[in-house]
Amino acid sequence: MTTLLLAFDLIGTFVFALSGGTLAVRQRLDLFGVLVLSCAAAVSGGIVRDVLIGAHPPASLADWRYLVTAMAAGLVTFRWHGLIERLRNPVQLFDAAGLALFAVLGTGKALAFGLSPFAAMLLGMVTGIGGGIARDVLVARTPVVLQAELYAVAALAGGGVVALASALHLPQHPAMVAGALACFGLRWMALRHGWRLPVARPRE
Amino acid sequence: MTTLLLAFDLIGTFVFALSGGTLAVRQRLDLFGVLVLSCAAAVSGGIVRDVLIGAHPPASLADWRYLVTAMAAGLVTFRWHGLIERLRNPVQLFDAAGLALFAVLGTGKALAFGLSPFAAMLLGMVTGIGGGIARDVLVARTPVVLQAELYAVAALAGGGVVALASALHLPQHPAMVAGALACFGLRWMALRHGWRLPVARPRE
Amino acid sequence: MTTLLLAFDLIGTFVFALSGGTLAVRQRLDLFGVLVLSCAAAVSGGIVRDVLIGAHPPASLADWRYLVTAMAAGLVTFRWHGLIERLRNPVQLFDAAGLALFAVLGTGKALAFGLSPFAAMLLGMVTGIGGGIARDVLVARTPVVLQAELYAVAALAGGGVVALASALHLPQHPAMVAGALACFGLRWMALRHGWRLPVARPRE
Repeated sequence: MTTLLLAFDLIGTFVFALSGGTLAVRQRLDLFGVLVLSCAAAVSGGIVRDVLIGAHPPASLADWRYLVTAMAAGLVTFRWHGLIERLRNPVQLFDAAGLALFAVLGTGKALAFGLSPFAAMLLGMVTGIGGGIARDVLVARTPVVLQAELYAVAALAGGGVVALASALHLPQHPAMVAGALACFGLRWMALRHGWRLPVARPRE
Repeated sequence: MTTLLLAFDLIGTFVFALSGGTLAVRQRLDLFGVLVLSCAAAVSGGIVRDVLIGAHPPASLADWRYLVTAMAAGLVTFRWHGLIERLRNPVQLFDAAGLALFAVLGTGKALAFGLSPFAAMLLGMVTGIGGGIARDVLVARTPVVLQAELYAVAALAGGGVVALASALHLPQHPAMVAGALACFGLRWMALRHGWRLPVARPRE
Repeated sequence: MTTLLLAFDLIGTFVFALSGGTLAVRQRLDLFGVLVLSCAAAVSGGIVRDVLIGAHPPASLADWRYLVTAMAAGLVTFRWHGLIERLRNPVQLFDAAGLALFAVLGTGKALAFGLSPFAAMLLGMVTGIGGGIARDVLVARTPVVLQAELYAVAALAGGGVVALASALHLPQHPAMVAGALACFGLRWMALRHGWRLPVARPRE
């Protein structure tokens, strides 16, 4: 079970890192910039969560496998970015899976550190979307997750299931599976059907 | 007294959140983006302060009322942004009050965690202006508080009064009231009279 | 020895702060903006390192000399920015020295807090380049260190020497001197000879 979780966690890290590397290549950053954006996209969410709950040092610094995985994804993107861009659909699939896993595991870790279910749900969302925000801020553009198709809402839904189960004293493992499925399903449906949140109309 | 402080703290949170929501609507972010910018503007300063002094978890995560207040302000902005924009003057009044309160309370909290008066004054300023910086960085623009009318200087003045009183072993509560009045008064005069700091002239 | 280290540390702080102040003047920020960018460029890297390893409060807040040095550099830039711009070559020399020192000392501090050599090397790099990233993000531009001539790679090399020595149980002080020389030499050669990392070619 733990091995399975670690495998998913590293797959999520790899796919998030691909998104950072791809953006860096498009922005014509050099090899180092590609590696930094890969790592930033992959581990920033978890680092922010760990800093906020007081987990020192953050998991992705304590275990070298996360950063090495992220750097490997960066190197892959640097060399075969054309291929990665063509694989957009499978990458989005893995990205949705990574988002679901990060949101659910992030919520679980925050609960384990004694935060309230409400705060834990928000920290699960931060774990899922923080990397994408850091990636976009580093190239000075408004984060896509603040605009895109139910991306953060899906993360919130996944963490919300886990947080609700904790508040109701239900068993945690089934709740995490249900939360991950909810997040993945919502994100996937939003992608396929173009579901979006409403946008306010500024004054003329 | 504590109830009064909490009320002011929540009013400051609400007004800061309005500034984030208004910017998000102008940038045509979706509903989620509006909520994120509202929360970022309202609680980032306090979160950075708590992370730097080692207060885990940050106050705005430990107490759900802060984020719920910020989200309520986001929803209000999303629905009635035209009205909020027309209310610019009263909103600026409350914003100056929120700034004064955040700067003074932030300085007091840093002192209570054992920081030096100098560092505490700076952390009070960070508490007051951090939210506005996070808000602007998230939409990729240079933070207004680095350019605007004595905004951060007013926060520094408020925190400075509290820090000075601490260094001189004067009683803290009157110092906080005096600091808040100094910050509010300076900010308000700067707004009314267009007081500005000098700008260096870059080489041609 | 400790006095010598402190002197170098403050020189590094001063020179990094000059880079922040110069950018602020070019962006026509006011006096306060110049001071904030000076401080952000000088101390952000160390603050991020201290937050990640759990050192509360960060060294640059615990010791007032760092921020006062950074602010002095900001004032100097505000008043004599034309002169600073003309002194580009000596400033780059000191900047390379500051980078070397920050990377090596940052790696050493992370090792002292029990991090693995791999993580410590990365945190040394963050100590060296974090300030430049914060400086650039605050004026909404893609950080120069993600694009420039082996800047971050030099920091990584310096920290890597210290981390490797720690992994091999070699004495630390000679390793720090060697690491600083490696970082400084690599950065200086890159500047003089225009060495660059490769850039991927995005698809047409």
